[in-house]
Amino acid sequence: MATISLRRARTMIRKALEHGRAEELKPLCAVVLDAGGNLIAAEREDGASPGRFDIARAKAYGAVMLDMPGSAQMARAEAQAYFIACANGALGGGLVPVPGGVLVKDNKGITIGALGISGDASDNDAAAAKAGIEASGLAAEV
Amino acid sequence: MATISLRRARTMIRKALEHGRAEELKPLCAVVLDAGGNLIAAEREDGASPGRFDIARAKAYGAVMLDMPGSAQMARAEAQAYFIACANGALGGGLVPVPGGVLVKDNKGITIGALGISGDASDNDAAAAKAGIEASGLAAEV
Amino acid sequence: MATISLRRARTMIRKALEHGRAEELKPLCAVVLDAGGNLIAAEREDGASPGRFDIARAKAYGAVMLDMPGSAQMARAEAQAYFIACANGALGGGLVPVPGGVLVKDNKGITIGALGISGDASDNDAAAAKAGIEASGLAAEV
Amino acid sequence: MATISLRRARTMIRKALEHGRAEELKPLCAVVLDAGGNLIAAEREDGASPGRFDIARAKAYGAVMLDMPGSAQMARAEAQAYFIACANGALGGGLVPVPGGVLVKDNKGITIGALGISGDASDNDAAAAKAGIEASGLAAEV
Repeated sequence: MATISLRRARTMIRKALEHGRAEELKPLCAVVLDAGGNLIAAEREDGASPGRFDIARAKAYGAVMLDMPGSAQMARAEAQAYFIACANGALGGGLVPVPGGVLVKDNKGITIGALGISGDASDNDAAAAKAGIEASGLAAEV
Repeated sequence: MATISLRRARTMIRKALEHGRAEELKPLCAVVLDAGGNLIAAEREDGASPGRFDIARAKAYGAVMLDMPGSAQMARAEAQAYFIACANGALGGGLVPVPGGVLVKDNKGITIGALGISGDASDNDAAAAKAGIEASGLAAEV
Repeated sequence: MATISLRRARTMIRKALEHGRAEELKPLCAVVLDAGGNLIAAEREDGASPGRFDIARAKAYGAVMLDMPGSAQMARAEAQAYFIACANGALGGGLVPVPGGVLVKDNKGITIGALGISGDASDNDAAAAKAGIEASGLAAEV
Repeated sequence: MATISLRRARTMIRKALEHGRAEELKPLCAVVLDAGGNLIAAEREDGASPGRFDIARAKAYGAVMLDMPGSAQMARAEAQAYFIACANGALGGGLVPVPGGVLVKDNKGITIGALGISGDASDNDAAAAKAGIEASGLAAEV
């Protein structure tokens, strides 16, 4: 199973933030976690409020912990909100069920981590994450 | 970027509580946080229940961490309650999405902290906070 | 049993901080808790680092929770450090066993709260707290 | 008061890790926090164990929260271990009292954040942090 190297994580973040600037998104925070939910790299753009780190990290953490990207978590939340709320509790606050917690997949389709982004509207966060992951040569599940 | 001095925080709280007495609100608790979410000053009026401190603090903390005043958090909660519930979890309980967590802005419109008030109906809490912030010479985003 | 009114708590803090300025202490943080360990008032002077609130609050909290002022907690820590470390754990981090968590007593000698101060050397913190409590008309147990 | 921009934080981290490679240190984790203790940027080198993030972050957090760099915290721990242990509790686990939590100062000597590094021996962590901070044009208090 491939792992996300720091080099690759930096690229993911750089490209995601470049996407954000190109699309004139609000300042973003990006967090890359490995398959175990542990932080590899993170950056909070100037102007992104301090809590964006916690949100971005939780987006990525919930995605990796449940192997469910943000969009799937949101669908579950729409259908059974109490499950998702309690999953958040069970995961120590580490789950934010909206787009922006994007799974990172290797070329075999195995989840090797997640990139979480917070700062703009959720769909825009997710698009930035997808752009960053794909620019780094990996596959994204939004 | 301006910061909130203790002197200014005291004025904010004093004026907010004076507003509360003038409007005959229930006993209030007021908490001033800086731009990093750290406490500068707090006061709980006689008769305000003990937990009002935690609520007022969380109102202010969530506002500063997400750069979203209470009214905006409430709109988000109405539209997507599970997101706000999970954001509360991601912020360690530090978010209460109703009016009363009012952003404090400097004269350039930059958020330099927040004043959280709890004790009466939320809209009244917010009005007291707004009065306090404005009386101290700063701008309020409710 | 007397309780600490907000008015009295403000006086305690004001007088404690005045003592600090007169003695040219480093910037201080002062936290007044009631007999239940709940916050009545708090102020962090300009220049006092953000964590001084957590330390001052824990000094006062441990004092009230165990009815042991900071000096007594320190004596216990010197004799049986593992007990104090675990008491900190049992109290959720709310115990800092050095001078500066000063019990507030009514005229019958009953503990009605505590004033915690942090920012300078512990003995100076305690002296400031004692000055503030006594200036407010109550008795201090250091 | 200056703040640490993301650009500057990236430079700090890059230069700290370059120092680590030049000195053949073990893989490091570097975390930059702002003056409020909030994360700006972080990187964990390949081969640095997952918990190095928490350690590096806590080194920086305790430093900023108490305005005491790691070496000063260590001196306090040597003299009064129970105080430091309880301060860790009061700060929610956010304090690791050994070299490597290095304060970042602006040209007026004001603390504007901290760079925490973990992965090698503490003194080597601190040297890497100092190198990174100074290479970014700011001053370091080790």
